[in-house]
Amino acid sequence: MTPTNIRINGDRLISRLMALARIGDTGDGGARRLALSDTDKLGRDLFVSWLKDVGLDVHIDKIGNIVGILPGSTDAAPILMGSHIDTVGSGGKYDGALGVLGALEVIETIKESGLKLPRGLAVIAFTNEEGARFQPDILGSCVWTGDMTLAETYPITDSDGKCVGDELDRIGYLGAAEPGFLKPRAYLELHIEQGPVLDQEGGGIGAVTGVQAISWSEYSIVGEPNHAGTTPMKYRRNAGLAAARITVFADDLTRAIPGTVANGGVIAFEPSNVNVVPGRVVMTLDLRNPDDARLADAEARMATFVAALQREAGVTIGRRELANFPAQPFDPTMIGAVERAAQSLGYPVRRMVSGAGHDAQMMATVVPTAMIFVPSVKGISHNPAEHTEPADIIAGGNVLLAAALELAHDLDAAAGG
Amino acid sequence: MTPTNIRINGDRLISRLMALARIGDTGDGGARRLALSDTDKLGRDLFVSWLKDVGLDVHIDKIGNIVGILPGSTDAAPILMGSHIDTVGSGGKYDGALGVLGALEVIETIKESGLKLPRGLAVIAFTNEEGARFQPDILGSCVWTGDMTLAETYPITDSDGKCVGDELDRIGYLGAAEPGFLKPRAYLELHIEQGPVLDQEGGGIGAVTGVQAISWSEYSIVGEPNHAGTTPMKYRRNAGLAAARITVFADDLTRAIPGTVANGGVIAFEPSNVNVVPGRVVMTLDLRNPDDARLADAEARMATFVAALQREAGVTIGRRELANFPAQPFDPTMIGAVERAAQSLGYPVRRMVSGAGHDAQMMATVVPTAMIFVPSVKGISHNPAEHTEPADIIAGGNVLLAAALELAHDLDAAAGG
Repeated sequence: MTPTNIRINGDRLISRLMALARIGDTGDGGARRLALSDTDKLGRDLFVSWLKDVGLDVHIDKIGNIVGILPGSTDAAPILMGSHIDTVGSGGKYDGALGVLGALEVIETIKESGLKLPRGLAVIAFTNEEGARFQPDILGSCVWTGDMTLAETYPITDSDGKCVGDELDRIGYLGAAEPGFLKPRAYLELHIEQGPVLDQEGGGIGAVTGVQAISWSEYSIVGEPNHAGTTPMKYRRNAGLAAARITVFADDLTRAIPGTVANGGVIAFEPSNVNVVPGRVVMTLDLRNPDDARLADAEARMATFVAALQREAGVTIGRRELANFPAQPFDPTMIGAVERAAQSLGYPVRRMVSGAGHDAQMMATVVPTAMIFVPSVKGISHNPAEHTEPADIIAGGNVLLAAALELAHDLDAAAGG
Repeated sequence: MTPTNIRINGDRLISRLMALARIGDTGDGGARRLALSDTDKLGRDLFVSWLKDVGLDVHIDKIGNIVGILPGSTDAAPILMGSHIDTVGSGGKYDGALGVLGALEVIETIKESGLKLPRGLAVIAFTNEEGARFQPDILGSCVWTGDMTLAETYPITDSDGKCVGDELDRIGYLGAAEPGFLKPRAYLELHIEQGPVLDQEGGGIGAVTGVQAISWSEYSIVGEPNHAGTTPMKYRRNAGLAAARITVFADDLTRAIPGTVANGGVIAFEPSNVNVVPGRVVMTLDLRNPDDARLADAEARMATFVAALQREAGVTIGRRELANFPAQPFDPTMIGAVERAAQSLGYPVRRMVSGAGHDAQMMATVVPTAMIFVPSVKGISHNPAEHTEPADIIAGGNVLLAAALELAHDLDAAAGG
């Protein structure tokens, strides 16, 4: 039923990825296009020019999300594909860009083929996915799905005090469309894995089953800044030692509770002297698990440990929640469509959980959603050295094309989600 | 044999402590007189004026140590007493100053009493004991005892590039006397404990048996800065977790090896992000023990642990030695003289090890030496809140007086060291 002889134009996709990466080029292979910055505007302008070149209907919504639409032969809800084109401060060429330009490539390929699909196809570039300039991250998709309102989003400021609303206006991307104006039948996001699993374990395509649950905590530990030579151990209230014990216990949890990953990524001592017991420590803890109940178990065990540690170490430990996202499973029919697409093209495919957050996790709350992962060399991402082999980029684009074709043709299968 | 009815003038001692603390007054109860700074010069000038008021022979040596001498009735070697008057950046009123002004008070008291002692008495204020501006610390006593030469000391620079030789000259304390020109029979140093033991455990006097051995290490841990969500635990090379495990193991050593104290006082992560595995960590470790062999045991066990940790955690760990001082026991006869002095005055006295370094540890390498500790309220030191009760200051001064009298009279007992 689905034509299997259509392929994307790989050279064109890679050439567009390289052209976009030259905007905000950091000179070391990377790119810097912080959301709503001057370089983000230039990247958006280039993307919009391509949408127009391909002849799509272009819409900008009130949070700056950019949508390009190729209508179908019926008024059935379209298949939406996309990701984001903003980057972290020291980003690479593929994170986000691949999902947006891959979607554009799929649409252009189908348009060129002359194929008439019952469902339309659309591409979306969401605003501020990275959260590097404005928090929270995945902001554009949160507004698109109604999880956040414009009224609470516009006043969000960056570290210089500039706000989302003003910056959208300044760069000319405060659009007229209502976020969520397009009601798609399904959402597909092609993305680099940003982790080492595919690269280390034989390559191929990842059929992403969902985004794992995330819990970010900041612990403020208060002890006493004593002399490290003259204070007997029994009189010490060592905030630095308490932080180390939290870090080691979190690592223990990764072995005790299947699927758990843990990281103490930030730490600061006050004072910070060789011979002074740290009196105050601020540290962060990132806990994740694909299963909400298991993450809750890890959080509960950590809370019990911290309570006992306070008494044992003579410190007080405050916890501030920095982020908390439940696990977001993707749609089984959609995951199946990705697997079938990869298999039909002869690519090895494996089901895997996304360790990082993506716009797809918001879209999955309102529409059947799946993601396609391609390998990241050495798992490096958010880094100028981020790299995916051209063959894998082209494979990912063709899987996106095949999955979109199946979904756009087969109204019943898609409705099964 | 020793007159026991002589007492210091406590008001005069405290009044001089307060007058010195007003030089470099930080407005919060503390003082800042970094070695060889303008405020250190003002403090030195005030001290020298007091030495002259009392009628002592004043000498400045080539490293700026200030000596005031009251000759005895014979040419037997004198009893030297002292400490330092420089402070850390945010220092208190008593650290160092008590030993110097206590010695001056003892000498003035004896001079006023008309007592003729066979041995002379002398007071010394050593240059740059704190090491807050110029490293190493205890610099003046290292030069006095011949452990360091003037040629290696003069070029030492502070963080602004100013050197010891130039700064001595600039403030007018590049003296003519040879360091070590005075050959005392014994050295006594009165000091605040800078720890909580006397304060927490009933007060009284500490008869210090020596300074414990010190080992300072800096560990540079190199792992890999991976994404904390997408990288499976088995692929992580977490430098932050390795640092936490070193910190916890060092704490375990304090229970495994009697007398050990341990502190991880400084730590820095690179990168420093909630969701990035720390790729590079620099941390310090301060290990001490009154017994050299036990400290060596702790160092050896840590080295074994670190070697295993490298393999286990997939990180490389380099160690740089920041400091290493052997234990410095004090002279048994001198310690006995301190105990007898305290007991003769009715003060509780206990033997204790000094957890911090002092000029006395250098003097002990060339002359029979002991130290007298008085309580530090809550063990707070190197801090504007540093406090010792007036009654304890006066008690310490009287113990110094009584011990000096015994040593100055009893030529045989002193020779027993």
